[in-house]
Amino acid sequence: MTLIKNNTEVARDKARVKNETLKVFLSEFFGTFLLCFIGLAINAQFILHKGTLNQWINVNFGWAFAIVFSVMATAKTSGAHLNPAITFMFYTYGNIGLIKMLIYIVAQLLGGFLGAAGVYGFYYEAINHFDHGVRAVTGATATAGIFASYPAPYCSFFGSFVDQIVGTGLLALFVSAIIDQRNEVPSHLHAPLFGGVLVMIGCSFGMNLGYPINPARDLGPRIFTLFPYGTGVFSSPSTYYWIAPTFAPFIGAAIGGWLYHVFIGFHLSDPVKKEYIPISAEA
Amino acid sequence: MTLIKNNTEVARDKARVKNETLKVFLSEFFGTFLLCFIGLAINAQFILHKGTLNQWINVNFGWAFAIVFSVMATAKTSGAHLNPAITFMFYTYGNIGLIKMLIYIVAQLLGGFLGAAGVYGFYYEAINHFDHGVRAVTGATATAGIFASYPAPYCSFFGSFVDQIVGTGLLALFVSAIIDQRNEVPSHLHAPLFGGVLVMIGCSFGMNLGYPINPARDLGPRIFTLFPYGTGVFSSPSTYYWIAPTFAPFIGAAIGGWLYHVFIGFHLSDPVKKEYIPISAEA
Amino acid sequence: MTLIKNNTEVARDKARVKNETLKVFLSEFFGTFLLCFIGLAINAQFILHKGTLNQWINVNFGWAFAIVFSVMATAKTSGAHLNPAITFMFYTYGNIGLIKMLIYIVAQLLGGFLGAAGVYGFYYEAINHFDHGVRAVTGATATAGIFASYPAPYCSFFGSFVDQIVGTGLLALFVSAIIDQRNEVPSHLHAPLFGGVLVMIGCSFGMNLGYPINPARDLGPRIFTLFPYGTGVFSSPSTYYWIAPTFAPFIGAAIGGWLYHVFIGFHLSDPVKKEYIPISAEA
Amino acid sequence: MTLIKNNTEVARDKARVKNETLKVFLSEFFGTFLLCFIGLAINAQFILHKGTLNQWINVNFGWAFAIVFSVMATAKTSGAHLNPAITFMFYTYGNIGLIKMLIYIVAQLLGGFLGAAGVYGFYYEAINHFDHGVRAVTGATATAGIFASYPAPYCSFFGSFVDQIVGTGLLALFVSAIIDQRNEVPSHLHAPLFGGVLVMIGCSFGMNLGYPINPARDLGPRIFTLFPYGTGVFSSPSTYYWIAPTFAPFIGAAIGGWLYHVFIGFHLSDPVKKEYIPISAEA
Repeated sequence: MTLIKNNTEVARDKARVKNETLKVFLSEFFGTFLLCFIGLAINAQFILHKGTLNQWINVNFGWAFAIVFSVMATAKTSGAHLNPAITFMFYTYGNIGLIKMLIYIVAQLLGGFLGAAGVYGFYYEAINHFDHGVRAVTGATATAGIFASYPAPYCSFFGSFVDQIVGTGLLALFVSAIIDQRNEVPSHLHAPLFGGVLVMIGCSFGMNLGYPINPARDLGPRIFTLFPYGTGVFSSPSTYYWIAPTFAPFIGAAIGGWLYHVFIGFHLSDPVKKEYIPISAEA
Repeated sequence: MTLIKNNTEVARDKARVKNETLKVFLSEFFGTFLLCFIGLAINAQFILHKGTLNQWINVNFGWAFAIVFSVMATAKTSGAHLNPAITFMFYTYGNIGLIKMLIYIVAQLLGGFLGAAGVYGFYYEAINHFDHGVRAVTGATATAGIFASYPAPYCSFFGSFVDQIVGTGLLALFVSAIIDQRNEVPSHLHAPLFGGVLVMIGCSFGMNLGYPINPARDLGPRIFTLFPYGTGVFSSPSTYYWIAPTFAPFIGAAIGGWLYHVFIGFHLSDPVKKEYIPISAEA
Repeated sequence: MTLIKNNTEVARDKARVKNETLKVFLSEFFGTFLLCFIGLAINAQFILHKGTLNQWINVNFGWAFAIVFSVMATAKTSGAHLNPAITFMFYTYGNIGLIKMLIYIVAQLLGGFLGAAGVYGFYYEAINHFDHGVRAVTGATATAGIFASYPAPYCSFFGSFVDQIVGTGLLALFVSAIIDQRNEVPSHLHAPLFGGVLVMIGCSFGMNLGYPINPARDLGPRIFTLFPYGTGVFSSPSTYYWIAPTFAPFIGAAIGGWLYHVFIGFHLSDPVKKEYIPISAEA
Repeated sequence: MTLIKNNTEVARDKARVKNETLKVFLSEFFGTFLLCFIGLAINAQFILHKGTLNQWINVNFGWAFAIVFSVMATAKTSGAHLNPAITFMFYTYGNIGLIKMLIYIVAQLLGGFLGAAGVYGFYYEAINHFDHGVRAVTGATATAGIFASYPAPYCSFFGSFVDQIVGTGLLALFVSAIIDQRNEVPSHLHAPLFGGVLVMIGCSFGMNLGYPINPARDLGPRIFTLFPYGTGVFSSPSTYYWIAPTFAPFIGAAIGGWLYHVFIGFHLSDPVKKEYIPISAEA
């Protein structure tokens, strides 16, 4: 592989970050920012233009591709977790340490917060057109649901908590299956398959809360909406509802990931070794 | 491939199941549980939230990805049949023996039963909201269709029986084509392609019964619904209707699989064996 | 590759057809039968169950996967044309001779005819439920459109003819691009990509006639419908309309295929040769 | 790879264009023509047949596949930019020079203009049926939106300009990520992934203007519509609106592409060079 020294290569020689922590921080921050900036804009099209443009299938495929490309862009620099619950799953696996986990989570939350700010700015005119300038968390002109999750009317706190355990659990379970080297899924297909998992969860477990299943994508934007929407975003429909999408995903991710290993992963044979000998690392 | 001894590897060294039968049972049980837990939740979103969330295309793609990832997770441990009719097809191929087939089918039925129980618990609040707590098999508030198939009003028993032969037959036919080594489809694409077959069948042969085409996915949940819904689940619209989705798939799978071989598979040439010798690296 | 002598292998040893013509005939007949049996069933779900089940996106993706899997199953035995216009394009390329082209076309037409018969039988109860047993080519209970194409009311014969030239032309153009060895598209992706081409054409050039773009898929079923629907199928909306979907595709396929070569294909460089030496043909 | 000397090969020997500039011009012209001819036809089906055929999801997937196959057909001859903003991004990267950029852009604009002419001719009957022969840029029978973008009523010029910077920026960002050799995405997947990026942008940032994000696709057709629709196409909703989709994409593409490199691309390690030595064939 010969890389031409074009302008990006020349700039890279000067600007390349070699500090591992900073590189990871930039990657997780930027990846989660992209994921939330795109994903919350999908929600905006769904809520503000219901029926004419986005339907539920657009929400499912839109978010799926947002995951696909955010992961694809950041996979080689930080592993593309983009989700504190997935980071926590890797922590329980012993793949990363406590400090690194906290760095990941701070970067992700910051990305989620700024992603929400970006969508608020981008669709400012459209939101004003929809609610005539009066921001509402509930009611016919409510738009807070663009940014953070609010449960269906029938849904209790317990139901919401279980919902987020199950949704994030399935995500973690299938992520673990896809990346398990013994399953021999080519690494360039990991990101597209994660997208498929999101479509699947959106079609099956999206009815109660809208499948946030990612604290950075729910808490980050919820904190941002404190400014334009007021404290109602932390008290609708109850003062403790926000705990469900913020904390249940951690429990779900750990359970889901380990369940995969208990039922399947532990018992897989090692693939027959096809030998190759790496020659040199300079490219 | 060097596998790092992280926590999952350490646990694997202790917990690994080497008994082939137990490994296969765990895999088929867990895979069919996941398939039905996710798939029946898709049906729930379709029936309980019609119009606003899931449309037919969500049902098609949702079930497709449920197949894709359930198969991908369990392919290396048990071959990922997840369907007694497909297991029976392999039995007629002579790939597995009678005892093994029965073990597969018991594991699959158990997975289907528990998948239904899981969805019933998960969407308990949503179902209550929809039917005000009165479980119904027929009528405007019927929800039994979340779990097992009930035919369209115009559909006779004979029509239902043929429907399941044809639907499962097409599934078995294309599964046989995709996995036929002489067609040289890379094995990591098998699961995604199975998903595409499901979308295709849902768009073409889903109108009469809703394409169950899998006895574990239909009979397992139907038995579960005896408890909350009563015996009506075995007598609607007739006392023998349930026979169609339970037994016709076996006939269909055998016919479909062998039809592929009679028209195509038998006549394929063996692929030319290629051995690659890398000559030079300049390109 | 070691192939286990299971029942299908044992049967293959006895039943294998080595006559090239018969093998090709079986393959093209069976592939076109599958394509039309599945595809016309998709149309049936669209027409008989409008709004509740299939929408236009289901028609697009359903037919796409019908192409994908019909092609995948028959690619190695006959090249999976499954369309007389595509066969004619290969004839103009000099890839096949006149006699072979005629064999392909007869097999394809027979497949289309029997595919229509299969769908008519399969959805007999559903069609009766829809039209109360009175088969109609036009009007509110018309169902002839399940089997063959009928133009939108505004569409002239000239418009229909151009429509089929353009639609089939685009199909032939992109098929030629995908299979051009100089574009280095892996052969296992050809069939899935053909499906994508169908989705694209259905979303762009499906409004006038419903994109038949395949004489075997239009004329074969139209001849079948002479029996249940009467001669109206050849005189609606005019006695010469049927000429458009029957003959224009041949013109379109030749123009589209060669246009690709004139603008792109002729000017492609040969890929850098990565040498491999085939060792033996026994597998 | 042995290429059979069939008719296309024989013709190639005579007609092959070896002049690099002409080859590139033909490729970018033809690719952008195909993209716009297909894409604007998708818009026609959306606007003329709203509800019955194309919904927003059809527009998203239809345009996506139009990109996929236009790029796939022209990738090896000209790199398949098909978009002046993407060409400009490569210019800022130093991958192409000023003269070459101008050649690309002229070819693309010409392709867009003729693509619009083609769709106008193709759907002439359908447009007449819809607007009774009176071409309108605004109002209930407006059809100018088939060809060029017109903003949502609430959308200011500033909002439109930002919209096109953001939409094209995301396109350029992810195109840069996908083609970055250090991300090791196989080149045959580039075109399909570009399609996914389009679906994503259509579901998230399509509400204001309908995501043209390509001056050749917006200005080329807008100039064509001067003839049938009159000067209103350059003065609706304001005389300077057309500046947004024409010039903002250049700014967006440069920002988006470089943002990828600043946050991610600069900091990627070179992949370890692997040289495979096949050891044994028993597996």
